[in-house]
Amino acid sequence: MATIRELLRVPHGDTVDLASVDPRSTPGLPDIRRPKAKAREQLSRVGDELAGYQERLYAQAKAGGTGRRLLLVLQAMDCGGKDGTIRKVIGRLNPQGVHIVSFGPPTPAERRHHFLWRVRREVPRPGYVGVFNRSHYEDVLVARVRGAVPERIWSRRYDEINSFERELVDEQVTIIKVMLHISPDEQRRRLRARLEDPTKYWKYDPADLEERRHWADYQAAYGDALGRCSTDEAPWYVVPADRKWYRDWAVAHLLRETLAELDPHYPPPSVDLAREKARLAGT
Amino acid sequence: MATIRELLRVPHGDTVDLASVDPRSTPGLPDIRRPKAKAREQLSRVGDELAGYQERLYAQAKAGGTGRRLLLVLQAMDCGGKDGTIRKVIGRLNPQGVHIVSFGPPTPAERRHHFLWRVRREVPRPGYVGVFNRSHYEDVLVARVRGAVPERIWSRRYDEINSFERELVDEQVTIIKVMLHISPDEQRRRLRARLEDPTKYWKYDPADLEERRHWADYQAAYGDALGRCSTDEAPWYVVPADRKWYRDWAVAHLLRETLAELDPHYPPPSVDLAREKARLAGT
Repeated sequence: MATIRELLRVPHGDTVDLASVDPRSTPGLPDIRRPKAKAREQLSRVGDELAGYQERLYAQAKAGGTGRRLLLVLQAMDCGGKDGTIRKVIGRLNPQGVHIVSFGPPTPAERRHHFLWRVRREVPRPGYVGVFNRSHYEDVLVARVRGAVPERIWSRRYDEINSFERELVDEQVTIIKVMLHISPDEQRRRLRARLEDPTKYWKYDPADLEERRHWADYQAAYGDALGRCSTDEAPWYVVPADRKWYRDWAVAHLLRETLAELDPHYPPPSVDLAREKARLAGT
Repeated sequence: MATIRELLRVPHGDTVDLASVDPRSTPGLPDIRRPKAKAREQLSRVGDELAGYQERLYAQAKAGGTGRRLLLVLQAMDCGGKDGTIRKVIGRLNPQGVHIVSFGPPTPAERRHHFLWRVRREVPRPGYVGVFNRSHYEDVLVARVRGAVPERIWSRRYDEINSFERELVDEQVTIIKVMLHISPDEQRRRLRARLEDPTKYWKYDPADLEERRHWADYQAAYGDALGRCSTDEAPWYVVPADRKWYRDWAVAHLLRETLAELDPHYPPPSVDLAREKARLAGT
């Protein structure tokens, strides 16, 4: 049976045509009755497994045995569900071993540096699970679509990103890049909910409507970024995300398959156990 | 009925005699059969409430309406359960709104600064729940017991801490300081478990045995710190922590009572809802 990683992975190379991926589809979920209930139930079980892997990853690094760490990069159109995914999936982990960073529009100070400068500073430490809520990919997405930099600049960033990510992989950072893929209709529904539900008013940003007008340009920019930067070392996955329960299920499985491959183990004792037991008994 | 805060709060002033608090007691838990099962069940429900408060606190700050934030300071003897408390209680919150910092022994660079320098940099931003795993209190605990600085230095730190915390309160930081109080026997049991359980070897640090020899000195140092720095603005609570299920229950309730008093609300809309709905329909 194909793994979820195989089903959702973007092939390296040409532009990806996002229109060919149905945002309401549920790849890898068995064809069953009540898939939503099933997916939620599995998420809970997989969440416990993730927490187990995370503790072993953390323990290994703490014992100095490895520099291994995980980095989840989340990208999406506005309302794509990045925050919800963090709450529902990353919320299953031990918060003490998690490093979450939201990359907003670069500040004036950040703009004076290379676009990767602020990103390098936030790479998770060994043993940690890092999450980028938006990332250096904004520099080939919004920066390109809204013309913040000329083509001469953004066009060379794909190679810069690939080099940067290769460096991270050399430092034992395992990278999982996920694009949460929603439809324009689903975005409208979610924006409308923010205007109708008093518990969601605070999420509404009028600037999102301006971005929405550039939907096609963003999809094209995503297509280039995903295709050109989905490498063997740092693959991109497209997760159909109109259905939140599938989105969470899929991201949890991507993490689980990746962590299972890393297969972290509790480290052996670093002390003479018998001797320490005797010392302890004497206190 | 007394609140958990009232039951566990340290009065301001003189040295606290920690020996007068039974680490196996369960103040505030109704006298019932199977208290452990009940406490765990309540923790789960209170956890959901905490997540609700947290979202409203975050939403308020995001809307710019307030600089309010929460800071939980956790202190304990080794094996006192700081990590477990974070996993079990703080793990109920949305990790994206949480800022956890572990303060280890100061680095040479940190030692060149005032002891509060590194702490100020980690104060949570508006809307966030910050957690200090150890804190500036180490500078009147280990620094005093192990003689890292002369009495002339550490003895004035209580006042410096009180001033610092008053500043934070002025910046709308609500401070909850919790000492997880275990017995020396319980510490021995937990240290032994780290020498007997292969999934816990990595937590064992031989230096903990050296610290353990100074138990009485630490209890005295805690007694001074708790009494002198339990102020109206930033109270200390002593949580009996030999029983992990009580510890988690109590910390969750301390947070809940504090957040209920803050009573954060979803902010009102910052836009003309009807106008935005019409704009959205036109996209």
